Amino acid sequence: MFSAKKYTSFFSTLTLLSAVALTMNNATATDMKQQGQVKQVDLPKNIIMVVADGMGPAYTSAYRYFNDNPATDEIEQTVFDRHLKGLASTYPAPVSGYVTDSAAAATALATGIKTYNGAISVDINKKPLLTVLEWAKQQGKKTGVVVTSRINHATPASYLSHNESRRNYDQLANSYIDNGIKADVYFGGGWKNYIRDDRNIVNEFKQAGFQYIDSYSQLTELVHDKPVIGLFADLGLPWALDDSNKHRLTLLTKAATKQLKNEAGFFLLVEASQIDWGGHDNNIATAMHEMDDLAKVMEYLESFVAENPDTLVVLTADHSTGGLTLAANKDYRWNPEILRTMQHSPATIAKNIVANDQLNLQEINQWLNFDLNSKEFQQIIQVNASYQQATTLHLLLSATEKTAQKAPELKEFYRQAILTIIDKRTNTGWTTTGHTAIDVPVFAFGKQSEQFSGQLDNTDIAKKIFTLLGK
Amino acid sequence: MFSAKKYTSFFSTLTLLSAVALTMNNATATDMKQQGQVKQVDLPKNIIMVVADGMGPAYTSAYRYFNDNPATDEIEQTVFDRHLKGLASTYPAPVSGYVTDSAAAATALATGIKTYNGAISVDINKKPLLTVLEWAKQQGKKTGVVVTSRINHATPASYLSHNESRRNYDQLANSYIDNGIKADVYFGGGWKNYIRDDRNIVNEFKQAGFQYIDSYSQLTELVHDKPVIGLFADLGLPWALDDSNKHRLTLLTKAATKQLKNEAGFFLLVEASQIDWGGHDNNIATAMHEMDDLAKVMEYLESFVAENPDTLVVLTADHSTGGLTLAANKDYRWNPEILRTMQHSPATIAKNIVANDQLNLQEINQWLNFDLNSKEFQQIIQVNASYQQATTLHLLLSATEKTAQKAPELKEFYRQAILTIIDKRTNTGWTTTGHTAIDVPVFAFGKQSEQFSGQLDNTDIAKKIFTLLGK
Ligand SMILES: [Zn+2]
Ligand SMILES: [Zn+2]
Repeated sequence: MFSAKKYTSFFSTLTLLSAVALTMNNATATDMKQQGQVKQVDLPKNIIMVVADGMGPAYTSAYRYFNDNPATDEIEQTVFDRHLKGLASTYPAPVSGYVTDSAAAATALATGIKTYNGAISVDINKKPLLTVLEWAKQQGKKTGVVVTSRINHATPASYLSHNESRRNYDQLANSYIDNGIKADVYFGGGWKNYIRDDRNIVNEFKQAGFQYIDSYSQLTELVHDKPVIGLFADLGLPWALDDSNKHRLTLLTKAATKQLKNEAGFFLLVEASQIDWGGHDNNIATAMHEMDDLAKVMEYLESFVAENPDTLVVLTADHSTGGLTLAANKDYRWNPEILRTMQHSPATIAKNIVANDQLNLQEINQWLNFDLNSKEFQQIIQVNASYQQATTLHLLLSATEKTAQKAPELKEFYRQAILTIIDKRTNTGWTTTGHTAIDVPVFAFGKQSEQFSGQLDNTDIAKKIFTLLGK
Repeated sequence: MFSAKKYTSFFSTLTLLSAVALTMNNATATDMKQQGQVKQVDLPKNIIMVVADGMGPAYTSAYRYFNDNPATDEIEQTVFDRHLKGLASTYPAPVSGYVTDSAAAATALATGIKTYNGAISVDINKKPLLTVLEWAKQQGKKTGVVVTSRINHATPASYLSHNESRRNYDQLANSYIDNGIKADVYFGGGWKNYIRDDRNIVNEFKQAGFQYIDSYSQLTELVHDKPVIGLFADLGLPWALDDSNKHRLTLLTKAATKQLKNEAGFFLLVEASQIDWGGHDNNIATAMHEMDDLAKVMEYLESFVAENPDTLVVLTADHSTGGLTLAANKDYRWNPEILRTMQHSPATIAKNIVANDQLNLQEINQWLNFDLNSKEFQQIIQVNASYQQATTLHLLLSATEKTAQKAPELKEFYRQAILTIIDKRTNTGWTTTGHTAIDVPVFAFGKQSEQFSGQLDNTDIAKKIFTLLGK
């Protein structure tokens, strides 16, 4: 953490800056400083920044084919196809090489500065960096974050906080109160860090005048003129595939925009956090259904911009995850058909297989919502033997103290078997369970969206948003 | 080359110039039919279509880091970064699924029509389709093709010919004469199909008034007002890494534009054919050096457009090859350092290892131009044993008539060992030796280049070029 001193000086600078800005800027026109040009531009009143964690170009291509209606001859255009503007490079500060993590990338998107992997809106010397959300707040706009991870996860934290490490989850949760409340809407997961034995931060938010909700059904009961914190899970929300509402990010985004609409405008961060987790898992089924929730968010935002044309929407990813590609093993095909009909995540299906006394092909087919062939069913049957083998080995190694690893879990073996079957059927390829250095697509629509065309760096996105917020 | 800054001022000059040109230009205006809009547009006099076979978005990202100067803190902008316009989808006609081959993709780029994989500018009913090159010729423009494959390979053939299968190489070669000569410049490989025992097509070109050359040095001796066919290899040219001129596509493109310049304008197809072959080989070293040749082509074309502002340059890929991604095995890094200094392809290095009586670490290091560590040298030493094993197995299987496969080749075993070492060092990931369904980047500059922004389909590119050719 930082010294209180650093913090104080940082925030007094901020206050000074915003005082100056407030007198100069009447939110009508400003100079666009980029490219040395001086142009009169019309600032958007509302800015909605959508971060699709892990969504490299393979994910939006994949989604087009996942979304394709096989009953028609043409391939349906997706909401992403309608708004593509270009690509953005994602590399972190030189100290971290060419491959970024979510913290350094979110810092670049939130502040316009490259930093080391793991940093939450601090520079390579661990000094705090002003974020676009903080700046928007200082300009008198309402602000909000809507995510499917916990609200103190790397991406939202990089807009709301400053810390030398993304792993300091409790510190980050504390900072949402201790460094001043910076948002009017917080939707996501996080009971684990916000309702603790040592500190109940939700209660502190309530004392500060916030409404608190913990179920989607309460979204309809919100009072408009009161800030809100909504936590719906201990950590991240359930997978879209497993959640009670498969488009829960869409639901939350609708509620957030309704809550934030006001005369002075708002800045909203929306993060489709779990596309990345699908990538880390090399799990094309969960990844595609997270993409589907994101697509519905973007379709909703199209209608929001139609009704509120003084709104800018920008969508990009922080990096690509998993080394996803749409073909494998020499085979010129990608077959998303089975993904379209799945209703449960492979993890949930695995848990259900374990819960049953014996393997029942029909029941497994029902869970999968597609029919395993006999070879695939053989692979499921084989799981138990592999698990027994691993367990025996683990016991042996534990007895001789040669391992400190967790005991193998049967449901994890079933989950892997299901993922293998799905990758084979769809012919999906992966190269890593981490991130890659590939550029990510940039999408924008609404007021001033043309500013985001062509090749960008992730830092350009924050710089442009600062400018469009009158900085 | 010039800096980005110079380029910006160049484009403002260009805008001015073209405004003037509108009143004086006799290239006549036409209606842009797309999107239902009717606009007066100024047609480019010259159109240069560059196809980078296999160059998905991973390749241009990779090239930026390959091209990065480690002595500077910033990451140098590439020519691709300067001209990115968007992405294009590449899927073939429904009968071939979502993953295209080079023939169907080149047909889409050349004719604006989706077809089946393998088709050379014929539709799914095998009916010939008009190509942009044919149309340009009919409009009185000169035309040319410059490729690093044979000139009758899938991509150039799709602009010049029509055939139900890309594999009919001799038929395709014959068609370049039999269906009427359609180009003024042909540069690439192809002796095998053009100088045959049954037919010497080079002689037929000569009889039709063509100059013929078969070495790069003759490029300087060309007569301007005479068409030319230059064949420099039996099949494709050597890898950029192995060629006498490592930027041979640049050399050929310069000669072609010089040759084609004329009052009526020209249409030129340039293909960086072998990026795809690097991808099929899962060979990041050859792929990056083919990219480097392409980058030099594009930098040359920047200067050509600066001098000839009535020229449009469009660059895209037909598809992405190899499932290339820039990280593997959980490791958050991509390290192109060794690739930058390599001077020979892995195939050439393998051949040289075989040519020597015994393994000499220093000599191998010299060929690689980087130092193997002891573990890597062990892997090279191990090759011989693996090869002996494979040979024994092959002999056994052949004796019992259980295989019709070719005998293992020692140099292929060394080549694979070198590729494994390079992938491990660079942390490069691949998912296939075939193609993938991922969208490819689109770049454009020069007159009317703004037409190519955002999300396109590969067929849109041909449609826009037809329109810009006055169709
Ligand atoms: Zn991640
Ligand atoms: Zn290919």
